[in-house]
Amino acid sequence: MKPQDAFELTCPVPINEYPNVLLAHGGGGKLMHQLIEKMFVPLFSNPLLESRHDGAVFNTGGGRIAFTTDSYVVKPLFFPGGNIGTLAINGTVNDLAMCGARPRYLSAGFILEEGLPMDELWHIIQSMRESADAAEVQLVTGDTKVVDRGKGDGIFINTAGVGFIEHDIAIAPANVMPGDSIVLSGDIGRHGIALMAVREGLEFETAIESDCAPLSPVVMELLDSGVEIHCMRDLTRGGLASALVEISEAARVHISIDESAIAVREDVQGACEILGFDALYLANEGRFIAITPGSDATRALQIMKRYQPEAAIIGEVTRPGEPLVTSTSCIGASRIIDMFTGEQLPRIC
Amino acid sequence: MKPQDAFELTCPVPINEYPNVLLAHGGGGKLMHQLIEKMFVPLFSNPLLESRHDGAVFNTGGGRIAFTTDSYVVKPLFFPGGNIGTLAINGTVNDLAMCGARPRYLSAGFILEEGLPMDELWHIIQSMRESADAAEVQLVTGDTKVVDRGKGDGIFINTAGVGFIEHDIAIAPANVMPGDSIVLSGDIGRHGIALMAVREGLEFETAIESDCAPLSPVVMELLDSGVEIHCMRDLTRGGLASALVEISEAARVHISIDESAIAVREDVQGACEILGFDALYLANEGRFIAITPGSDATRALQIMKRYQPEAAIIGEVTRPGEPLVTSTSCIGASRIIDMFTGEQLPRIC
Repeated sequence: MKPQDAFELTCPVPINEYPNVLLAHGGGGKLMHQLIEKMFVPLFSNPLLESRHDGAVFNTGGGRIAFTTDSYVVKPLFFPGGNIGTLAINGTVNDLAMCGARPRYLSAGFILEEGLPMDELWHIIQSMRESADAAEVQLVTGDTKVVDRGKGDGIFINTAGVGFIEHDIAIAPANVMPGDSIVLSGDIGRHGIALMAVREGLEFETAIESDCAPLSPVVMELLDSGVEIHCMRDLTRGGLASALVEISEAARVHISIDESAIAVREDVQGACEILGFDALYLANEGRFIAITPGSDATRALQIMKRYQPEAAIIGEVTRPGEPLVTSTSCIGASRIIDMFTGEQLPRIC
Repeated sequence: MKPQDAFELTCPVPINEYPNVLLAHGGGGKLMHQLIEKMFVPLFSNPLLESRHDGAVFNTGGGRIAFTTDSYVVKPLFFPGGNIGTLAINGTVNDLAMCGARPRYLSAGFILEEGLPMDELWHIIQSMRESADAAEVQLVTGDTKVVDRGKGDGIFINTAGVGFIEHDIAIAPANVMPGDSIVLSGDIGRHGIALMAVREGLEFETAIESDCAPLSPVVMELLDSGVEIHCMRDLTRGGLASALVEISEAARVHISIDESAIAVREDVQGACEILGFDALYLANEGRFIAITPGSDATRALQIMKRYQPEAAIIGEVTRPGEPLVTSTSCIGASRIIDMFTGEQLPRIC
């Protein structure tokens, strides 16, 4: 029953305005941000949640641990460069890596729709095993639920992850400060376009494959190198733009980026032009930004280039103040980068 | 794309026999057991997963941690005694407690269906906050996805949990041995009947409420008391019967129970007779069995009775050998307790 006896606070999201959940509430843009910032974070208020990090970091007595979760509802289940299983492992591995943790243990919760072909399930979990091996994590606990036909969409997967933090560096949005550089780990937009191409039946000369991959190897090397890292964030839903806006809000700083420094593959750029997308907002599943003091940025870049030659220093944190992200375009024009209100591509991860 | 380059093992579940996922694959009975034992456990093979416990227990250097996950797809979302939110907190808290861990941190992954009324979401997450407070856990990290209308069912919630193990006792199915007693923590069947009554529109003189509650207080007291505990298991999907069969299989022992010792409320028993259910298979969300050496069973019972007066010693582990659970009924007849093949009540949690 509806909890009549519950402490009934007024819902902080204006119910008149949004009486029902919209697709955009899960799109990584403004509406999702509102849901999280106005409903979830204040209601469950605690310092770990309020750190607004990709995961929670806590002490166990013997060391620090990072803990994170993501549910995967990507559509279609199979796409060039991966499937929902590879995504479910790499996505959570990457969130742990963003906390500066070495990913170790994952859980998997499956919500299967009645009628899912058993061979698809088998393919997906084989991919999970392969991705887990590649990222050096173990799947150690799980759960399986089945919902009736028409009440799910083949398969949804949740993975939660635990990683061990083996250093004393504090990595969090709050540590970002003026003078920091933004180092981007590679070209952007491939995952979003790979998904969209399959959905829309678009054909390109060469298939655009998702960039889905574990980020823990490059992150572990960055940490081992002694480069000072203030924050990292992987560029999933909402893309590079949303990650920058979120960090500028959490740290209360201005960030300025130079679009000419950002690598976008020619075919991805072409697809963006046809489809009317902005690559800055496209989802990625194997790209991140590292925010380091300006003096450490070149060393960070050298390491990141060994993994992706297109890695680049794309901007800097200019000053404290009202959160703001500005961008200089390839032709020199300046614009304000804001979050999407809606949903550029639903169910991208 | 389907992973053509993946190591393509033959699917160990006979695809001719079960070409598609059935509701029963999530029902807590034989088919789910087959899916887990033949597909998931061998594929992801590792000692933590193979412990077949309610969660994984590992060392962090500074102490042992338990880690567990469950997805909640209960239908309807609101029922007498709780809702999907209370279930999502207590279910995962209870799995941690079953590992002998003090529940500390939870993650929450929401899969919302487009069109979910915002006030229902608000009610549910308020209940989560209340349940988390009651169980003394914090929700520290989360994720929200939205799927298109008709591709979900209002809301699905996954919670994963981390708990700290503050003692040296090894609690696991493998430790169960002949001479152990089975202590049941209270009356059974209320959650299953409460759900079924709402679904079927049945009316009873008094509403039967779910037993949904956190088990960590009674478990922490048992552990603090020094009672030796070999294993614990909460009685969710598949009920008491499935829990006993799973433990007899994991420990390779015979278990014998006395049905006359098991408390079933009169209205629950009445509903079982009308609906043709066996209370031993009904889901519970606030009941567990503790398996202790026979010499410690009375002390365990005394503690458990302080929380639920209907707690009782209901049976014993008689001998090693081929897994087998037998039961003596109230009229003295003996029967073999097996897992359900199918699904007594789908989407019960």
